[in-house]
Amino acid sequence: MSKKRQLKLGAFLMSSGHHVAAWRHPQARADGGLNFQHFQQIAQMAERGKFDMIFFADGVAVRQRGQGTDALSRSVVVHFEPLTLLSALSVVTEHIGLAATVSTTYNKPYHLARKFASLDYLSGGRAGWNLVTSATETEAHNFNRDQHMEHGLRYERAKEFVDVVTKLWDCWEDDAFVRDKESGVFFEPDKLHIPNHKGKHFSVRGPLNVARPPQGYPVIIQAGSSEDGQELAAQTAEVIFTAQQTLAEAQAFYSGVKARVAKFGRNPDDVKIMPGVFPVIGRTEEEAKEKYEQLQDLIHPHVGLGLLSGMIGGFDLSQYPVDGPLPELPETNGGKSRQQLLTDLARRENLTIRQLYLAIAGARGHRTILGTPVTIADQLEDWFVNGGADGFNIMPPYLPGGLDEFVELVIPELQRRGLFRTEYEGRTLRENLGLPRPVNRFTKVADSPELVSASLHKLSIID
Amino acid sequence: MSKKRQLKLGAFLMSSGHHVAAWRHPQARADGGLNFQHFQQIAQMAERGKFDMIFFADGVAVRQRGQGTDALSRSVVVHFEPLTLLSALSVVTEHIGLAATVSTTYNKPYHLARKFASLDYLSGGRAGWNLVTSATETEAHNFNRDQHMEHGLRYERAKEFVDVVTKLWDCWEDDAFVRDKESGVFFEPDKLHIPNHKGKHFSVRGPLNVARPPQGYPVIIQAGSSEDGQELAAQTAEVIFTAQQTLAEAQAFYSGVKARVAKFGRNPDDVKIMPGVFPVIGRTEEEAKEKYEQLQDLIHPHVGLGLLSGMIGGFDLSQYPVDGPLPELPETNGGKSRQQLLTDLARRENLTIRQLYLAIAGARGHRTILGTPVTIADQLEDWFVNGGADGFNIMPPYLPGGLDEFVELVIPELQRRGLFRTEYEGRTLRENLGLPRPVNRFTKVADSPELVSASLHKLSIID
Repeated sequence: MSKKRQLKLGAFLMSSGHHVAAWRHPQARADGGLNFQHFQQIAQMAERGKFDMIFFADGVAVRQRGQGTDALSRSVVVHFEPLTLLSALSVVTEHIGLAATVSTTYNKPYHLARKFASLDYLSGGRAGWNLVTSATETEAHNFNRDQHMEHGLRYERAKEFVDVVTKLWDCWEDDAFVRDKESGVFFEPDKLHIPNHKGKHFSVRGPLNVARPPQGYPVIIQAGSSEDGQELAAQTAEVIFTAQQTLAEAQAFYSGVKARVAKFGRNPDDVKIMPGVFPVIGRTEEEAKEKYEQLQDLIHPHVGLGLLSGMIGGFDLSQYPVDGPLPELPETNGGKSRQQLLTDLARRENLTIRQLYLAIAGARGHRTILGTPVTIADQLEDWFVNGGADGFNIMPPYLPGGLDEFVELVIPELQRRGLFRTEYEGRTLRENLGLPRPVNRFTKVADSPELVSASLHKLSIID
Repeated sequence: MSKKRQLKLGAFLMSSGHHVAAWRHPQARADGGLNFQHFQQIAQMAERGKFDMIFFADGVAVRQRGQGTDALSRSVVVHFEPLTLLSALSVVTEHIGLAATVSTTYNKPYHLARKFASLDYLSGGRAGWNLVTSATETEAHNFNRDQHMEHGLRYERAKEFVDVVTKLWDCWEDDAFVRDKESGVFFEPDKLHIPNHKGKHFSVRGPLNVARPPQGYPVIIQAGSSEDGQELAAQTAEVIFTAQQTLAEAQAFYSGVKARVAKFGRNPDDVKIMPGVFPVIGRTEEEAKEKYEQLQDLIHPHVGLGLLSGMIGGFDLSQYPVDGPLPELPETNGGKSRQQLLTDLARRENLTIRQLYLAIAGARGHRTILGTPVTIADQLEDWFVNGGADGFNIMPPYLPGGLDEFVELVIPELQRRGLFRTEYEGRTLRENLGLPRPVNRFTKVADSPELVSASLHKLSIID
């Protein structure tokens, strides 16, 4: 195909927006987290902008903000559970992908396989699963544990988890259900393959009580950046979310992941790498900067201190003048390298405590782009054409306003440059992302030679 | 209030209908289980009929039908997961309650509390949870177990489960979220109550990351008929589904449960007892009988034999002539009393194997009513006015046709008699059922004396 390669775009949505103080912004809906009309408006807006998908992060706990409830009480702590929300949004959208994070650490593969298959049917093939492991104590405390699961064990469990889930999605062949009223045959018995999985973490007989999803599998997304995380992603992910600050870093990550993917015998084009971008859009550069400052001014010192405390091992900074220097910090058990990084940053740039928390509070590790629609499009294009990204995960600072601006101002600029679609190419998320439909591992290859080239069936051993 | 007491009605829905061969019926949609348009049509039809709620049973496995895949392959084995389906249906309905079974045996309270709270927000206070325990081996095999959990332990777990779930629903006071953009206060810290539950089965710190549901708690439904099941229901249920065949049995069950409810200090009116009814509607009695026979004729012998085998301890009947007598059965380990009951029935009524499976295959233990709209209304009224029921759980034999007939023919007859609403009374499921909104156990009673009379807060000990 001679068609020009185009960007993939996800709209990464949080209740009132990504900025830590978003809910206080005049153009943000403060009660957005539990307001269906809010999400309906946003999802339809993203679909009008031809985004590939909307995406919700998730955790199974209220996110802690430093010590006590003071910083917490100034933060958005309640919101919809994403699978129920996406199911509802499937009814008011037609084209856009519907993706959510669900952890492998505190879930069971049968439940997860079922719910995502169900969402894939509700939406006609638009579901996506962001596979994560849970690494916070607050989540552990809601699930009978004192501490979160050790890193290596978490990833070992995650690997087996995705193996079980994909086996369950494969257990019915695509054409198993004949539903012949006359003969009374609902499915053809030889097209049922009972997984009967027995592994270290899971024993799951199956079959699933949902048919094979319209997409074969819902699109599998991952964001792990550790060695274990990258290995798992290279074997199983089709979309990779990542946080990268500079083009050089993004290029290194991009080429590294694509090489890893090839190492597992997969086609590197079948994995889309999409760094996060936190865009602040103005009619002029100056206006964009002012808008950013306006957001930063909304960060209550207790929230900023809570965030910063959390990043330096829980050390309480509330006794120190917020416009004074960072004090000497005691040794801590956890997050040592991050503590050192932040201390170095504060010393090198001569930052006050306030300046330090402001530096980390906005995009929370993702790339902030301030600018006009043209300069923002320039920067996205730069990474896209120079081997830094296959697309981007757009993180609107506040909602609905921040997404509206991106759709009205930046998307048309990308379309004018031929970098982004003006119509959806396919019916499913998988088709729009340009990903192959996974072959069913149980279907006899001789019957469907044209499907052999698809890659995902390689990931698991057939019992 | 002098308003005449009225029936409560649930529409208990299965993919293509309740009859075991429903999917083969000319007026049934064979692919209904995974067809959203099908469920949208049904839900809107039930809402047009002013039903209190639609309700989905559920299990976390394909339901086994005898040995092997032969009988299974003639049965509806795949369908939507109910919480995702109800979330989608919340968008296309306005008034009707949305209830689903979720088991306490293979779930975690934090997930369940979240998802139902989320559904309650999506639907504006229309969620209902049918609390069950899982008692099949096929479910156990999907969740790392060889055998299902022992009865007493299951109920012990269920009791603690509902305690944790309701604590999580109560952890935010109803007016905790002020979301004051000016001051930056999102919630008032003294209106957060961290459950910090530590019990035999669960350690769950909380808080929940969803606000207190619009209904306080989604309506809690139960169907357990064992001694343990009835004790749990008397303490925690607000709606009780039950299978009763005769008015005398129904009256005994009704008065027994209401007495149990009173024993726990609850108002017996706050628990609605709704037996299942499987209606076959004709313009004449004769036509209703013909319609029933037409359904029965659709039961493939292998499905009938599979059902029957399952009920007599797994004994394989396929070697015996289907129109001959039931053979002598060997002793089995499980389900002895049911085996004896069926053997006695076959001997007493001189039934062939076919006649025996036909006798048990239709409503599967629920009451079948064949008749005209008038005689069906007569029978419902009889139970309702004579202390047998507060309402009914209507189980359409085939869908959408069977529900359509009930809404078009029987509902108007009930309305003419003043036995059923012509408009919804309230905005929430709880309001329509006439149930009180549960008081938050953590809210200081002195602040809200008018709420003290509500009963559900008594069920749990405050830490």
